[in-house]
Amino acid sequence: MSELRKDPVTERWVIISTERGQRPSEFAPLPRTDKVSLCPFCYGNEDRTPPEIYVVRERNTAPNTPGWLVRVVSNKFPALRVEGNLNREGVGMFDKMNGIGAHEVFIEHPDHRKRGWDYTAPEIHRIIEAYIARSLDLKRDTRLRYLLIFKNDGEQAGASLSHSHSQLIATPVIPKRAREEMEGARRYFEYKERCVFCDQIREEQRFAERMIFENEHFVAFCPFASRFPFEICLLPKIHRADFSLVDGVERMPLAEAFRTTLRKLNEALSGPQYNWIIHTAPTRLLERDANQLGEDYHWHVEIIPRLTRIAGFEWGTGFYINPTPPEDAARYLREVQGTGSPELDERGA
Amino acid sequence: MSELRKDPVTERWVIISTERGQRPSEFAPLPRTDKVSLCPFCYGNEDRTPPEIYVVRERNTAPNTPGWLVRVVSNKFPALRVEGNLNREGVGMFDKMNGIGAHEVFIEHPDHRKRGWDYTAPEIHRIIEAYIARSLDLKRDTRLRYLLIFKNDGEQAGASLSHSHSQLIATPVIPKRAREEMEGARRYFEYKERCVFCDQIREEQRFAERMIFENEHFVAFCPFASRFPFEICLLPKIHRADFSLVDGVERMPLAEAFRTTLRKLNEALSGPQYNWIIHTAPTRLLERDANQLGEDYHWHVEIIPRLTRIAGFEWGTGFYINPTPPEDAARYLREVQGTGSPELDERGA
Repeated sequence: MSELRKDPVTERWVIISTERGQRPSEFAPLPRTDKVSLCPFCYGNEDRTPPEIYVVRERNTAPNTPGWLVRVVSNKFPALRVEGNLNREGVGMFDKMNGIGAHEVFIEHPDHRKRGWDYTAPEIHRIIEAYIARSLDLKRDTRLRYLLIFKNDGEQAGASLSHSHSQLIATPVIPKRAREEMEGARRYFEYKERCVFCDQIREEQRFAERMIFENEHFVAFCPFASRFPFEICLLPKIHRADFSLVDGVERMPLAEAFRTTLRKLNEALSGPQYNWIIHTAPTRLLERDANQLGEDYHWHVEIIPRLTRIAGFEWGTGFYINPTPPEDAARYLREVQGTGSPELDERGA
Repeated sequence: MSELRKDPVTERWVIISTERGQRPSEFAPLPRTDKVSLCPFCYGNEDRTPPEIYVVRERNTAPNTPGWLVRVVSNKFPALRVEGNLNREGVGMFDKMNGIGAHEVFIEHPDHRKRGWDYTAPEIHRIIEAYIARSLDLKRDTRLRYLLIFKNDGEQAGASLSHSHSQLIATPVIPKRAREEMEGARRYFEYKERCVFCDQIREEQRFAERMIFENEHFVAFCPFASRFPFEICLLPKIHRADFSLVDGVERMPLAEAFRTTLRKLNEALSGPQYNWIIHTAPTRLLERDANQLGEDYHWHVEIIPRLTRIAGFEWGTGFYINPTPPEDAARYLREVQGTGSPELDERGA
């Protein structure tokens, strides 16, 4: 069972996988495979993952066999587990709790070779539906406080398997970064009586130089204080705190926003490794916080190509050096048309 | 001139290098060289760096020529510059200021092949003296609020040159991470009326399982809530907020603590890439904060081998998954003797 431990100075929580206990010799990078026969996420290898929790399948295909279009399974090496009771405990001067939570893997597409920018909008729509369905289910677990949905694409971005997938980790505490965003948004709201994210939409539309594109329901732009080159924010025009409550009419525009953004990144940066992260409100708040959170928080997506390395300065300060002004990055991204893999387009799209 | 920009939600500052404006095609990794003739930090190439600001030299050698033992120069591609006035400015809803600060490089040793664990204690002592001298000088600049000293060793750790060096970046704002530590330490002090770092020393000594070693003035241990496998904290036994005020009698024990820790890391992890970061109090505080800070903050060194990759989960949450419990890491590190390069030892130590 993993353990959650709290740093006594910064109050940052850390998950310590006590059960794996990785030894010094085990930190060599995992061998990566492009052999479909060895990939646990490919058709025919469904028995090499835990059984499916959620799936979209072709008619008349059996669970845990080929024929699926999107497939969600538990992580085989979960950071946190659903089983057990949540115990909070002090150890000397320190605080810990046991590793209750959930860790699920979204296998986004049957085709091993497809990456994010190769997906059609309906394919992305299917993935979004899976995110929402799993979020709504996990929100019913009263032990859980936060659901983080994210994608690591490429080894530099933290992926250990090359078949395109994303993950959901549900935690019994509200992570530090989520808390910071909520608190920052609240401070702004208290001062201005407006949502800081709604204000950013208006500001980016007015200024235009950091905008990448917009559709009926979403804007995509490079944030004013981008930490990384070509960092992108997808922000919904409808003010809403909780991603899992996204309306049906917003879902295809969101899929299109993902598709356009990823295809532009692919063309501008020649197939970069990247992360996407969905920032949403905590599933459960103290009652005093719950009323206000709807007003001041606003869910959004962060997309970060992994082009620069995080070094001592960034670790030491939480202060980032970005060599590409977001205005320049946005200009490049506006100028490129955006492409997926042409070969895959012909076959798949 | 670079620009400092503040994120309106999290209030995180970012340095945007507007003058370089890195284009998409420029993110290929820099070619690394082990050719001494091409290395700007080797003897004979002193004209390939800005002139030296601080130096320890053999007698009768001229400035900016060979014969130095430690050499400090301005970074040739500084993130922040000393020249100019500090201007704070609003842009629409956002806040920015110009990139005033300092960015210096410490060339730690003339020998291109030596890494941290190859240094003798007197060699490390010389580097510490250089850190202190530069800190005391920069503290006189009233525009600066924080001095961060750090080392990136290896490409994964963010180094762009292989000749062993460390850096100092002085910023006109207190970085988020430093502020978090100060605030956390203050909350603990207000509650307990004791320093959280002093309490950690006692707790780690008592519990013993996370201790790596100690000498008269320093303890080295793997923190309870380590974010990374084999993360190490060097903590001075004398309570002091500001690293630059370290007493003469503590400096050689600090050098020895560095040397022992690095040699143990080298042996346990076969020459890992790593960062070290000196966490210290801000140089300048509002008067209301200055009185208390001496009581509740305590400078220390963080050493982080780069064994795992930071992925979407960590970015999205500020929540870390660590596969090696710090008790296991500390046991490995206690068991190994610690080695530098034997060949280099014979010649140099």
